[in-house]
Amino acid sequence: MARYQLGQVNADGSPAATDRGKAVRPTLCLLMCEALGGDLEAALPAAAGLELLHNFTLVHDDVMDDDETRRHRPTVWVVWGRPQAIDAGDLLHVLATLSVLRSGGNGASAPLAKDATEVVTQGCRLVTEGQHLDIAFETAANVGVADYLDMIARKSAALLAVAFELGAIFAGNDPATRAACRAYGRELGVVFQIRDDVLGIWGDPAVTGKPVGADIQKRKKTLPIIHALETSDGPDRTRLRSMFSDNRVPPDVEAATAILERAGSRDFTEHRLRQHAHQAGEALSQLPVSDWGRRNLEAVATYIATRDR
Amino acid sequence: MARYQLGQVNADGSPAATDRGKAVRPTLCLLMCEALGGDLEAALPAAAGLELLHNFTLVHDDVMDDDETRRHRPTVWVVWGRPQAIDAGDLLHVLATLSVLRSGGNGASAPLAKDATEVVTQGCRLVTEGQHLDIAFETAANVGVADYLDMIARKSAALLAVAFELGAIFAGNDPATRAACRAYGRELGVVFQIRDDVLGIWGDPAVTGKPVGADIQKRKKTLPIIHALETSDGPDRTRLRSMFSDNRVPPDVEAATAILERAGSRDFTEHRLRQHAHQAGEALSQLPVSDWGRRNLEAVATYIATRDR
Repeated sequence: MARYQLGQVNADGSPAATDRGKAVRPTLCLLMCEALGGDLEAALPAAAGLELLHNFTLVHDDVMDDDETRRHRPTVWVVWGRPQAIDAGDLLHVLATLSVLRSGGNGASAPLAKDATEVVTQGCRLVTEGQHLDIAFETAANVGVADYLDMIARKSAALLAVAFELGAIFAGNDPATRAACRAYGRELGVVFQIRDDVLGIWGDPAVTGKPVGADIQKRKKTLPIIHALETSDGPDRTRLRSMFSDNRVPPDVEAATAILERAGSRDFTEHRLRQHAHQAGEALSQLPVSDWGRRNLEAVATYIATRDR
Repeated sequence: MARYQLGQVNADGSPAATDRGKAVRPTLCLLMCEALGGDLEAALPAAAGLELLHNFTLVHDDVMDDDETRRHRPTVWVVWGRPQAIDAGDLLHVLATLSVLRSGGNGASAPLAKDATEVVTQGCRLVTEGQHLDIAFETAANVGVADYLDMIARKSAALLAVAFELGAIFAGNDPATRAACRAYGRELGVVFQIRDDVLGIWGDPAVTGKPVGADIQKRKKTLPIIHALETSDGPDRTRLRSMFSDNRVPPDVEAATAILERAGSRDFTEHRLRQHAHQAGEALSQLPVSDWGRRNLEAVATYIATRDR
């Protein structure tokens, strides 16, 4: 089941030719490590652990959210049932920790492996807290912009912060560099999620592969929606509230988008995105990375902030 | 939710006066550590981590098994729903690892903390494998005695083996002592589960607080049942098979017990229990424990093998 989730095999155990995901977190971990002149070999098991950890959260998220497909295949719980899927997620969590514990290169580097394991586990703690908030928000009466940003900083940004901090651990383990890496990853993670929220409403269906106003159709309370619910008034507020709480009528995407424009929610969201991108840039400027590394990390940040899908 | 599961608070967050469980694993970890002349303070965070890990498995098990009560209270998923319960279990898993990472005393002991984390995580891996087998056995056509013993060695015995091995880690970390502790815990864990199986069928209702033949009524395929299904023949085999597969008719406890007696399943089960208790004794005899420690560990073994509830 773990290998199925990782895209290595089909449900019957035969080798799979399928989407294995983009391995964003391990890739960025190793990029930061290399940019800081670190030891890639020592970082490799920790980077692999991040991908296992990410997949553990996906397996459990799919159970929690009743999601039936992932990367164009049935989710683990659809194939093997919820009990086995919960257990397979737990195993991936365990395998992630074991992989990170194996990092650090030779046997003399127990402190590095211990630090890496602590950072990954603390990041995972933030993810479970973010997931808790996300589930709670579904039924909460009032979720504000600050609540939402706090939630995505945990659920979406924590593992990106961990990825970059791991890179710093295996490149000298300097506390100030680690802190700057953490800040860079946290801000970029928030940018990533806010860009996702923008694309979920204003993305080009021909590029995203999703329908117009996809997140409105799914009643996802993303940043623009939360802003509009918080700041609009009169009939706009009443209309938007009922669209996002009344499950009997499908939401009117056109009307909702017009309300968002009137509330200035798109401008607000894009302004927030630029703020966090700026803070990511500030953190990056403090990092003692090579010129090659800086160019690549800047390209990553630009991509995350401006991607169209 | 984590604190509710640990029995510290009620569902509304107020302090609870409730059963917090027996803390068997941390107690035995610290007993072994002391018996070996180890550093109790250094072992304490790891011992606490074991209790957190055990509770993580309980929260997830209750979701997987649809169990609605635990220690006379509604289970976490009954109070907060399955998604939050899965997430709360994940958090307990994380907190367990963080606690174990904090073990070892002062900062110079990173290798001990790393070893402890590895042992606990490997133990947790065995538990998830045991849980996988347990779920799979529910729908498997043929489960033999060897399959069952393999399953309980993982699901029930692994964390007891970890408890004792942790004691040895913080008492000199000698590989041979660690291996003997592991063997002692594994054998005792199997004894514990087999005794559970005996009590589940032949326990005294006045002492166990459970009905006569409780496990037969619940169609639990425990060791005596699996032995009888494997070795009985003719009408006994047919009758027992139908009692454990046909959900329309409640199992006939008296008839099933008679079949078990004819198949020699009680003798077989108690013989197996004595074999594993003997192997536990062999492992204990190899341990360099104090006289005080040996007496206490022998008392633990005797209690586990002969307890009436």
